[in-house]
Amino acid sequence: SIQRAQWVKSITHCQKEHLSARLLSEDLPVDFLSSVTCQVCDHLLSEPVQSPCRHLFCRSCIAKYMFSLGPHCPTCTLPCTPADLTTPAKAFLKVLHSLLLFCPRESCRERVQLDSFRTHCLGHQLEEEARGGKLLEKSLDNFLPVNKGG
Amino acid sequence: SIQRAQWVKSITHCQKEHLSARLLSEDLPVDFLSSVTCQVCDHLLSEPVQSPCRHLFCRSCIAKYMFSLGPHCPTCTLPCTPADLTTPAKAFLKVLHSLLLFCPRESCRERVQLDSFRTHCLGHQLEEEARGGKLLEKSLDNFLPVNKGG
Ligand SMILES: [Zn+2]
Ligand SMILES: [Zn+2]
Ligand SMILES: [Zn+2]
Ligand SMILES: [Zn+2]
Ligand SMILES: [Zn+2]
Ligand SMILES: [Zn+2]
Ligand SMILES: [Zn+2]
Ligand SMILES: [Zn+2]
Repeated sequence: SIQRAQWVKSITHCQKEHLSARLLSEDLPVDFLSSVTCQVCDHLLSEPVQSPCRHLFCRSCIAKYMFSLGPHCPTCTLPCTPADLTTPAKAFLKVLHSLLLFCPRESCRERVQLDSFRTHCLGHQLEEEARGGKLLEKSLDNFLPVNKGG
Repeated sequence: SIQRAQWVKSITHCQKEHLSARLLSEDLPVDFLSSVTCQVCDHLLSEPVQSPCRHLFCRSCIAKYMFSLGPHCPTCTLPCTPADLTTPAKAFLKVLHSLLLFCPRESCRERVQLDSFRTHCLGHQLEEEARGGKLLEKSLDNFLPVNKGG
């Protein structure tokens, strides 16, 4: 229900930490898209864990969900405790980590693998800070007396 | 419904042509598994095509389905004609073709990529025929007069 969905969102608080599925190319098959998104928060799976019923969730989402709503699977309601959670099959993790995301910077728009996306974005941030630093230097140049040597 | 499911099976007739999802490693997440199987025949997708609602089917399954049951999507019943079908995104096809299947021969059990699985199995068949040929040669040796030369 929508009510439960809203309740779940108010539990997870992961908007700033997890990546949106909208970063993926838009024409992917819907069932494939939902297989790489968290069944609790709808973001791209972040550190996914698998229930005994083989449903997937972000590690942090399922922990918060169980703490608030009890020991069962959010997708199919079968019993599931934190101790029942396992790491998904390597073959699946490889698919997840190889997903190509579009960099949201307008000046870039590169396609970057999920597992190097954070590093890529950090690069933009550092560039910007460096540019900010240079701009600052330049503006200081205009105001500080220049020692022309000697 | 089960009735429709049986009706669909009696339309597709693809048991001998398509590959079973049971050839995949057993611990894959269920939603991922269903994203690589045909929504009509439940086999691993064979020459997949995508509806405008972004659901996937084997090319042959959706053709037979529409011919028998009309121009709509088998998964969500939205309108869909043969002309609306497109090729799925390359990123998805790469995932599908890279799936590792277990060779069902007891003497082999290798993990083989989906896109080279038929070649792999044909190899076994040729080996067997060659062995059969040798066995035949041997058994003929016992019955044919041997020309000991000279
Ligand atoms: Zn999230
Ligand atoms: Zn999540
Ligand atoms: Zn479940
Ligand atoms: Zn970028
Ligand atoms: Zn089939
Ligand atoms: Zn099919
Ligand atoms: Zn559909
Ligand atoms: Zn084999």
